[in-house]
Amino acid sequence: MTTAAVKTPLGVIASGGDLPKAIAESARDGGRAVFVIALTGSAEEWVKDFPHEWCGLGEVGKLLKALKGAGCEEITMAGKIARPKFSDIKLDWKGVLVAPGIIAAARKGDDGLLRAVVETVEREGFRAIGAQDAAPGLLVQEGPLGRLKPDAEDEVDIATAFKIVRTLGELDVGQAAVVSEGLPLAVEAAEGTDAMIARIGTLPKHFRGQADKRRGVLVKAPKPIQDRKTDLPVIGIATVRNAAAVGLAGIAVEAGGALILGQKAVAEEADKLGLFVIGVKP
Amino acid sequence: MTTAAVKTPLGVIASGGDLPKAIAESARDGGRAVFVIALTGSAEEWVKDFPHEWCGLGEVGKLLKALKGAGCEEITMAGKIARPKFSDIKLDWKGVLVAPGIIAAARKGDDGLLRAVVETVEREGFRAIGAQDAAPGLLVQEGPLGRLKPDAEDEVDIATAFKIVRTLGELDVGQAAVVSEGLPLAVEAAEGTDAMIARIGTLPKHFRGQADKRRGVLVKAPKPIQDRKTDLPVIGIATVRNAAAVGLAGIAVEAGGALILGQKAVAEEADKLGLFVIGVKP
Repeated sequence: MTTAAVKTPLGVIASGGDLPKAIAESARDGGRAVFVIALTGSAEEWVKDFPHEWCGLGEVGKLLKALKGAGCEEITMAGKIARPKFSDIKLDWKGVLVAPGIIAAARKGDDGLLRAVVETVEREGFRAIGAQDAAPGLLVQEGPLGRLKPDAEDEVDIATAFKIVRTLGELDVGQAAVVSEGLPLAVEAAEGTDAMIARIGTLPKHFRGQADKRRGVLVKAPKPIQDRKTDLPVIGIATVRNAAAVGLAGIAVEAGGALILGQKAVAEEADKLGLFVIGVKP
Repeated sequence: MTTAAVKTPLGVIASGGDLPKAIAESARDGGRAVFVIALTGSAEEWVKDFPHEWCGLGEVGKLLKALKGAGCEEITMAGKIARPKFSDIKLDWKGVLVAPGIIAAARKGDDGLLRAVVETVEREGFRAIGAQDAAPGLLVQEGPLGRLKPDAEDEVDIATAFKIVRTLGELDVGQAAVVSEGLPLAVEAAEGTDAMIARIGTLPKHFRGQADKRRGVLVKAPKPIQDRKTDLPVIGIATVRNAAAVGLAGIAVEAGGALILGQKAVAEEADKLGLFVIGVKP
């Protein structure tokens, strides 16, 4: 009997996007049983490949009962939450009890919402773990992921962008920035990384690179203050394509402090489009 | 003879937008003669109301000769520069001499371009002064400009946003941020304030205010490191309208560290739309 086999099933509370699927698959591929709570309106079709239960955002009692019934002790939660109006949420008995605290937390954004849900689950005796512990294979390692590496100028931009992201993170602002030849082109706040990258394309051309002469780097790193159980920065193949579309030279993420979904596909796409993707030790 | 009358004419190197016009009018209304260098392709029709000379971006010799001919000793420069391709710029003899340094500086953005032009002009014996010295009437005073004032929650958001803007300014990132109920909604880098405000409207509705229930503040403040001769933050009636359109509760700028164009019109528009505009001592 392997170490993985004696572990209780991993409970994955899944909302939208590719991250919860990547976690569930990575845990299963590592030999661990997985039980998925699929959040209604957010989770996607892939959940049918795992033992699972659909729960509404307000059905907290049902969710807890399903996780206990599946024998889960460790749970992780991941994904993007499509929010209905709070007035549309159907609350079960447990939902009624915890809703006021979660609604208050949710007004501060997804971070706050996730933290509040984690606390609720932990009060019920589950142990909440981060995606990086549930699926260590997703964590970014140090070094380049594909064939390309930053040149000397890119290295300077990477250092500048990391400084900006860390400083912003201490103020709880965002997780990402773009710097090109020393000039900060964009800084992420509530709009998210994809929207931030997209607006590079609207800047005057002399500020930015083009497909045939790439310039500038995207850096993503966790906020120093954030709870690493919930929300490490994530990049995937879409991030590489978005960065390529606006002429960036590459992407740098904090080694051990960010997740890459589909590392092989990301490396191949970066090679194909002519960008570097690199994990950098803080 | 008043003090103003003994001064040499103020030389205003004018590119686009409302700021150079406001400076020229403010100086003239204060009793000082004004001579305008109108930059071809950027400066606007109003220059015909002043003694002026049109100069291309590369006609540095012509520009210097015109300023000397008009008896100017102090010059100020302001406005947005519409950049042609560098290859389209017609260089006169002086332009050829200074172009390499200015082109290199321009790659770092308008800040760098303006600093390089200021240095060029000062090497020719002129004294470059900031808009706030050329037209002190444009400087933001402490206190509310219109009828409305920030409430207690707005005050907290103002303090948070100032902290973000100052920290960003130390890293030479930007001059503006929007915070709503403690949540940083947007941070300015190279895109400029108008684009930054506009994207508030694209954020999920629970993050932001609406016309009937305004939330969140825009803060603008100079970078602590910047040369105050060139680029103090500016707001005008368009800033008030843009902030109103995305549901913000108000605008706070650094008293003595920002310019307001058309203070009376800005106050009236803020009152009409239900926003506060306030100068805050750092």
